[in-house]
Amino acid sequence: METPWEYRYAHRMQKMGSSVIRELLKLTEQPDIISFGGGLPAPEVFPLKQFKEACNSVLEHDGAQALQYGTTEGYLPLRKMIARHSLRYSVEVEPENILITSGSQQALDFIGRLFLNRGDYIVVESPTYLGALQAWNAYGAQYISVPMDEHGMIVAELEKALRIGPKFIYILPNFQNPSGATLSLERRKQIVELADKYGVPIVEDDPYGQLRYEGDHLPSINYLDSEYRGEDAAYTGNVIYLSTFSKLLSPGLRVAWVIAPQQVIKKLVHTKQAADLHTATFNQMVAYEVSKGGFLDEHVKLIRATYKERRDVMLETMEEIWPAETSWTRPQGGMFLWGVLPEGMDTAEVIKLAIERKVAFVPGAAFHANGGGKNTMRLNFSYCSPEAIREGTTRLGMLLRELVKKNGIHS
Amino acid sequence: METPWEYRYAHRMQKMGSSVIRELLKLTEQPDIISFGGGLPAPEVFPLKQFKEACNSVLEHDGAQALQYGTTEGYLPLRKMIARHSLRYSVEVEPENILITSGSQQALDFIGRLFLNRGDYIVVESPTYLGALQAWNAYGAQYISVPMDEHGMIVAELEKALRIGPKFIYILPNFQNPSGATLSLERRKQIVELADKYGVPIVEDDPYGQLRYEGDHLPSINYLDSEYRGEDAAYTGNVIYLSTFSKLLSPGLRVAWVIAPQQVIKKLVHTKQAADLHTATFNQMVAYEVSKGGFLDEHVKLIRATYKERRDVMLETMEEIWPAETSWTRPQGGMFLWGVLPEGMDTAEVIKLAIERKVAFVPGAAFHANGGGKNTMRLNFSYCSPEAIREGTTRLGMLLRELVKKNGIHS
Repeated sequence: METPWEYRYAHRMQKMGSSVIRELLKLTEQPDIISFGGGLPAPEVFPLKQFKEACNSVLEHDGAQALQYGTTEGYLPLRKMIARHSLRYSVEVEPENILITSGSQQALDFIGRLFLNRGDYIVVESPTYLGALQAWNAYGAQYISVPMDEHGMIVAELEKALRIGPKFIYILPNFQNPSGATLSLERRKQIVELADKYGVPIVEDDPYGQLRYEGDHLPSINYLDSEYRGEDAAYTGNVIYLSTFSKLLSPGLRVAWVIAPQQVIKKLVHTKQAADLHTATFNQMVAYEVSKGGFLDEHVKLIRATYKERRDVMLETMEEIWPAETSWTRPQGGMFLWGVLPEGMDTAEVIKLAIERKVAFVPGAAFHANGGGKNTMRLNFSYCSPEAIREGTTRLGMLLRELVKKNGIHS
Repeated sequence: METPWEYRYAHRMQKMGSSVIRELLKLTEQPDIISFGGGLPAPEVFPLKQFKEACNSVLEHDGAQALQYGTTEGYLPLRKMIARHSLRYSVEVEPENILITSGSQQALDFIGRLFLNRGDYIVVESPTYLGALQAWNAYGAQYISVPMDEHGMIVAELEKALRIGPKFIYILPNFQNPSGATLSLERRKQIVELADKYGVPIVEDDPYGQLRYEGDHLPSINYLDSEYRGEDAAYTGNVIYLSTFSKLLSPGLRVAWVIAPQQVIKKLVHTKQAADLHTATFNQMVAYEVSKGGFLDEHVKLIRATYKERRDVMLETMEEIWPAETSWTRPQGGMFLWGVLPEGMDTAEVIKLAIERKVAFVPGAAFHANGGGKNTMRLNFSYCSPEAIREGTTRLGMLLRELVKKNGIHS
């Protein structure tokens, strides 16, 4: 029943859909559910001691600055640190190429606000990050889905998509959310060239790049773009690069960054000023204080070791228990893997039975901008303990065995 | 000269104006300028000791929660505390009526996103808060300006404005930014009735309500609306109420809140989820920890005493030095007062000379949505020390004497 308020004023407000992920995250709050649904870091790896020291030091030495309004661009020492960090991967940028955002979600929102008019097209991987679709749906975006395999976006399909005239290409190159796939070096180079040929910018979303558990680091699309054009990429680059402290330090801080040509950063700064003035000064100073002096380099080793073990437990359990009719990705890093059930099975149905057995995942359809993926699922392996991963993956596997048998599917 | 990047891609991005306030805030960073330009709290009143204790306590007892992703609605104990605080002023709300935002600027942005289509009208006071205009300009808003006097918006003009069919009315009832004016009780009641009559919601922006230095607290428009309708205001109210910890604790935390009917909060929650997922968990928990147990009630006494002294010094110096041809408001609280120069003088010109004399303010034209106010100026009295206020107000007064004389204006 509609309330009187809704009756009187609903017509004044924009229409909005509800969020699958949001409803699912509520389930993860039930303590007896083993949830592979969210995308949460392991709380065990939060560097509490370093945070405590950093908070005390910031308040002790720079308290008046930390609690005061700050500049929209972000805390300068933090932006300088990010510039130095980028240089390590040969990407030469100045602080003027960097904007601090309140999480990468905010960067996605601002990019939508800056580039999109209602009905504009965006090229996305299929599947792609749900939060990006949510951010851009708000601006009336339409999507051109380019299929992926285990080496990322299939480039042969990209050129067709670019001819439609999209506003930008959105790519998660490393340990993609949701699929876990990593874009190969060759494809990265091809995408840089194609994007340049068609004059379409690339939004490179890289929250997990540091979380590699095996294999060699691959250069970012941003770096390859600057190498390709052989110009001053700080001004002329074709890539808007996003990363975050959420997976390295803490998502509860909401501190992330955008690296882009200065003209884009200037526009994003104007956007941010109207949207929330600036990211919390205190959080930026604490993130800087915790990260400086090489701590992040040490800390990321602990995260890698922790998540690698969890990924391995999940993969081993799947090998052991899951029916032969199912398949899954073997991500070299990150926080997610991607399960594929036999055609005709619907993970939106499977999840209901899974929740009865106290285990959760995200049905894959939600990650597809233009439909499909009904037989797919995203599994997070960073949050639960290895024991819970073994138990939850086993429960899911047993359920899938029953379902595959019932559907009369044999290998 | 345009960079190659701009040449290639500028047409893809939205057009944006630059910000007067933003450019001015840069001036306040020059250490030798006495700036009445910004809207910064006095750093001397930041409760650093309490923040340190709160950070340690939160990380000690709830570190894993504080550094983790949180719910979009906000930290429940904080929302409960805000509900209890509202009840003190007889406004009965549930946590479901409250959304935590990353500063009130974000709430203004979300309200724009939720309610506005390009070309929609908003009723604003003239002058009004510049940040609100910036937020809503991004959505293509148009404004109906209702003039003010020392008792706030002139209600006789409001009814005409409402007949044009605005999406909402925006009011800062207490110690308005920029004018310092407080809306009288009688007008508050009249506005509630008129808004109800025309079915137009009210956005009540109240960052300064607690900062009263003399006179009696006036009931909020939100409370008067619920009293007027005699129904369950949590569902049926006509007011979206905004407030913040920025002026009571710290703007660098970026923690504020919206109180509204549940249908509105639900939509704002969806908006926030797509925009930045949630406000930093850590900051919400620290704000709660610092505020609980009655500390805020004690702390606000210190803020009031500090700002009252500064306001008094500014007013006394103006009485003493400023030419008789100028006038100004005498705010009962808040952080700003409003100067009016003789007609024909332009504060956008005055500011250039003022900066040469190392003193700054904000020219008043920027606060007028539909032009006018060229002879007005906003002066902040919360940030500078009493000594600096005396010195800066004197410098400005001497300059104004010269200018008034030169223009041949005599009292």
